[in-house]
Amino acid sequence: MSAVDAGAREAILAIDLGGTRIRTAYLRPDLTVTHREVNATVPALGVQGVLDRIAQAAERVLEAARAAGDPAPVAVGISSPGPLDPWTGVIHLLPNLPGWSDVPLADHLSQTTGLPTVLDRDTNVALLAEWRHGAAMGAEHAVYITISTGFGGAAVVNGQLLHGPDGTAGELGHVTVDLDGPPDGEGGVGHVEGIASGAALARDGAALLERHEAPVLASLVADGAEVNAVTVCAAADAGDAACAALIDRAWSAVGAVCAGIVNVLNPEVIILGGAIADHRPDLHEAVRREIARRAFAIPAARARITPPHFGEDVSLVGCWDLVHDRLAGGAT
Amino acid sequence: MSAVDAGAREAILAIDLGGTRIRTAYLRPDLTVTHREVNATVPALGVQGVLDRIAQAAERVLEAARAAGDPAPVAVGISSPGPLDPWTGVIHLLPNLPGWSDVPLADHLSQTTGLPTVLDRDTNVALLAEWRHGAAMGAEHAVYITISTGFGGAAVVNGQLLHGPDGTAGELGHVTVDLDGPPDGEGGVGHVEGIASGAALARDGAALLERHEAPVLASLVADGAEVNAVTVCAAADAGDAACAALIDRAWSAVGAVCAGIVNVLNPEVIILGGAIADHRPDLHEAVRREIARRAFAIPAARARITPPHFGEDVSLVGCWDLVHDRLAGGAT
Repeated sequence: MSAVDAGAREAILAIDLGGTRIRTAYLRPDLTVTHREVNATVPALGVQGVLDRIAQAAERVLEAARAAGDPAPVAVGISSPGPLDPWTGVIHLLPNLPGWSDVPLADHLSQTTGLPTVLDRDTNVALLAEWRHGAAMGAEHAVYITISTGFGGAAVVNGQLLHGPDGTAGELGHVTVDLDGPPDGEGGVGHVEGIASGAALARDGAALLERHEAPVLASLVADGAEVNAVTVCAAADAGDAACAALIDRAWSAVGAVCAGIVNVLNPEVIILGGAIADHRPDLHEAVRREIARRAFAIPAARARITPPHFGEDVSLVGCWDLVHDRLAGGAT
Repeated sequence: MSAVDAGAREAILAIDLGGTRIRTAYLRPDLTVTHREVNATVPALGVQGVLDRIAQAAERVLEAARAAGDPAPVAVGISSPGPLDPWTGVIHLLPNLPGWSDVPLADHLSQTTGLPTVLDRDTNVALLAEWRHGAAMGAEHAVYITISTGFGGAAVVNGQLLHGPDGTAGELGHVTVDLDGPPDGEGGVGHVEGIASGAALARDGAALLERHEAPVLASLVADGAEVNAVTVCAAADAGDAACAALIDRAWSAVGAVCAGIVNVLNPEVIILGGAIADHRPDLHEAVRREIARRAFAIPAARARITPPHFGEDVSLVGCWDLVHDRLAGGAT
């Protein structure tokens, strides 16, 4: 791989691989996101089929940039769910994409595009964007939490992205907050992801319905609407006591995890984002309450709880930093 | 403060301040601990009284070294419970020493000894010793847990001791593992320290006795023996079902915390020590079991669970590294 000039700001190709969508774009040196494509992932196509979709979208974006007279990108940055190896660019496993086992995604894109290609976990890439340009700018110790269908995390410690020797560090959704809880169906036992993620709220809301314990939720989905985090939250807001208790416990779990993070990592900032957190100011309040209740006073006073700066482009922007850090020989 | 020659190995004076004992010694450049004194802390003497005891012991050890013709130590290293500020050398609070609030301990020793003096939390100092010379040698990512009356922790991340901006990071005993648990009397809510520390086991064992639920424990303490972690463990070993359940849940809590550490920090080694862990091989087994049950396979395969290399001298040895790192301008 040719190295990027450490001091230069260059254009790159950014790919954000998700379980439902593949987002592909050209990023100018000023971080402008352009020539954007959003395509369905189509897991049913299998590994090679999805790899082809990724490569074809990349080629179309490169062609659009060429046609527009934009400078050739110097590298490809890819954001993907994990677990993955950020140094070899191999995806170990994608829970939402059947068959993905030890797939050398970075090598594949490098071959099809002819460009050096680097890969990292989506949450790490998002935190890179927020840390360099967004809600955690200037921090030496920052934590990123994203709550949507799952519960993802990442951390910057001593001014470095926290990877650990296997590149798997920062999985903040997979810490136990309910010691006596049952296996949660997502590979954990009493993990916060099994209590406070969108998937967990949908599962627990459905269980309330089955037990006829959530009358408001029942009326909200009487027309066939899906039982999910949105409907469970709406039912709680409309006075459904069982749904309110479910949400209250879920938000307390998030707060308890954040309090533990405060005591263990002493971060200057905790970014709390994702589809669920973005729409629930009561989650931010609960996190502050649980930190006050469960964390030491000195690090609790330090930790700023904040929404993310970036929206859905966060991982595309982070790919720019990933490429420039890694190919310049940085520690990211 | 005069700087220690970064390349030189010099003798130091080491002080290990604890709630019950003050250990003071001269450390040769080869880390030999000599001219050792162990004195009772006597909290009832108040702040000035305890400060005087520390300074007097330091002076006696310095005098003994002089009398023996040993080279003058270049600095003083102090290990103390926290919370404290490792950079200013101020102790914010000592839960076991009434009246200790924002005490500039390092400045005090610097004035009485005439030597540059550095301070850090006891668990950080112990991990320094284990990391440089003991069970975590060669690791870039290491965790230290000590379970005795309390539950202490420290971490090395990316080859640096984890302090955080306030120097309070690494408090692994203060993470929530029992979301719905009551306040535990030690300033936490559902924290592992409130479930698995010596103080917690003593409290919960006494509660079992009061409810007449622990007949074997009752017979063990019938002669007036103290209900503590040792007697509760002995009762469990002798077939007391309630005590066995208590211990099982406590060890599971330790294991759950370690599993969370594996997922968040991806350490190469977790050192599990302290008076309780040292005498309970079943605790190490439980930790391995819970990591297998609650952590991702890749980081779980990485993490080595090991007892500490050093015994009660660990913090004295760590003071040597603390002094040499800090006064040489290191990041510790």
